[in-house]
Amino acid sequence: MLLLHLNDVNEASWAKAFSEALAPYPVVRRGDDFDPAAIEYIFVWKPKEDAFDGLTGLKAVMSLGAGVDALMKHPRLPDAPIVRFVDEDLSQRMSDYVVAHVTMHHRQFSRFQADQKAHRWSQYYPPAASESTVGIMGLGVLGQDALTRLKPLGFELRGWSRSRKNIEGIAEFVGDAEFDAFLAETDILVNLLPLTPETTGILNYDTFRKLRRDRLAGGPVIVNAARGGHQKEADIVRALADGTLGAASLDVFEVEPLPEASPLWDIENCYITPHIAAISNEASGVRYFSKILRDHEAGKPLVNVVDRTRGY
Amino acid sequence: MLLLHLNDVNEASWAKAFSEALAPYPVVRRGDDFDPAAIEYIFVWKPKEDAFDGLTGLKAVMSLGAGVDALMKHPRLPDAPIVRFVDEDLSQRMSDYVVAHVTMHHRQFSRFQADQKAHRWSQYYPPAASESTVGIMGLGVLGQDALTRLKPLGFELRGWSRSRKNIEGIAEFVGDAEFDAFLAETDILVNLLPLTPETTGILNYDTFRKLRRDRLAGGPVIVNAARGGHQKEADIVRALADGTLGAASLDVFEVEPLPEASPLWDIENCYITPHIAAISNEASGVRYFSKILRDHEAGKPLVNVVDRTRGY
Repeated sequence: MLLLHLNDVNEASWAKAFSEALAPYPVVRRGDDFDPAAIEYIFVWKPKEDAFDGLTGLKAVMSLGAGVDALMKHPRLPDAPIVRFVDEDLSQRMSDYVVAHVTMHHRQFSRFQADQKAHRWSQYYPPAASESTVGIMGLGVLGQDALTRLKPLGFELRGWSRSRKNIEGIAEFVGDAEFDAFLAETDILVNLLPLTPETTGILNYDTFRKLRRDRLAGGPVIVNAARGGHQKEADIVRALADGTLGAASLDVFEVEPLPEASPLWDIENCYITPHIAAISNEASGVRYFSKILRDHEAGKPLVNVVDRTRGY
Repeated sequence: MLLLHLNDVNEASWAKAFSEALAPYPVVRRGDDFDPAAIEYIFVWKPKEDAFDGLTGLKAVMSLGAGVDALMKHPRLPDAPIVRFVDEDLSQRMSDYVVAHVTMHHRQFSRFQADQKAHRWSQYYPPAASESTVGIMGLGVLGQDALTRLKPLGFELRGWSRSRKNIEGIAEFVGDAEFDAFLAETDILVNLLPLTPETTGILNYDTFRKLRRDRLAGGPVIVNAARGGHQKEADIVRALADGTLGAASLDVFEVEPLPEASPLWDIENCYITPHIAAISNEASGVRYFSKILRDHEAGKPLVNVVDRTRGY
């Protein structure tokens, strides 16, 4: 039996889609009449504290989100394997966001918008993509998808991650020891890391200071599409004010929704979107988790299982 | 002998570079002491009315620009073949501009910027690139380069041109008869046409009206990276005001620099850049035309010669 426990999304709609996809395998929701011990799988989003209580027969926890940092902090998280959502549609949407913001900053959008406001015709030719370097932090499924899409645009590419991935055509940097070298020739820094204790606050003033300064006319740029916990917003405000950063695109925030009083709202070269870079699509989510559940019931191993020691 | 006749660019710098690249072949500039009848090639940008006078031995006119619409209107243009600038570096820069503006509009930039100004956290998930169609007008070197770069981003692609090119993976539409069908499923319209009598004013209200309206939340979008003569600015102002267009990115204008009094400056969802989408790079220009000149002197045919009946 599959139990759905989804908050802030349309649980009824997901339940209907899962029921159709998995029939005759039973699908239930909170409030339905079922025996907790009969639940084999639970599909969660923002689970409440009692979400897992009494689920003694659990084979797996399935997470609607690609990032499981919040789930990992659940006080009564069971021992069952946790399966992350890894999906082409989600990767496509995330890369859509990343490419749009990388190319916008590469083409000096802030500069031309300021000129337009002043009715100023001031010709400036941005460098070619081939003269600019994008550095991706996090080389998992999302990071690798972004690289695949940025490559044909002509950018120089480099990546930084915990372990070597040997991705063709990019300069790879691994671990703390190579972080500064990674930053030293990065013009546009894109964050797609999982949020773990090690990566919390990695987008800070000291990091920004180490980015390459002489290539993009406005100064180096950051794009954060991962988690608000990765960034120190006070440092971003300071770096945008003193020119350490030329611009920033932020889809995530330390507190969401971003509080009305945040100074980020009014910074012209800070581009805010309300955590909409990529959403887990219902149709592809149902397809993905239904296949995993059916395969597992047929004796196949689970895929995309979270490594609890790494935290993702 | 090669004569340089360049206005509004650093002719001395180009002359030095050409002299070094072509030596011992002689390179001269206006004002130098030379016999006009000895000039075999002339390299021009914005030629004055007397530019070609007395050049009775001309083998070719070489144009710094990729577009030759202004040159074709020169009142004393000689009969010699005209060679256009077609170059990877120029194509890359043009595609940089096109991709940045296409992706920005696809990600509903205007909407999120308005929300930011209002300190409004309003979640909206743009469609995936794979759910959006970009239509390119003009399938020459620049149009094909843009398609090559947009394809890996996942967009549905279609193209419109005078003659069938049989480009893989895109829906092709040819000539007047298929123009409306081309527009009918286009969400983002990109203009990379040559400017000819047939294409003058093609970006007009009637064209905008025929674009697909139900896919991009803000309405369809145009991106003009070709020539100001392609667009009717009064129609763009009207279409942006009444919602026929959701947004426009314009790099070129009917009159350049764009006059201070133009209403375009103050329209929030009109994105103005001062004709900087792509510049002819000196190093690659010298490389390109030096090779053509040397090859031609060695008996090879000229390449990228303008067809005077087509006008490009």
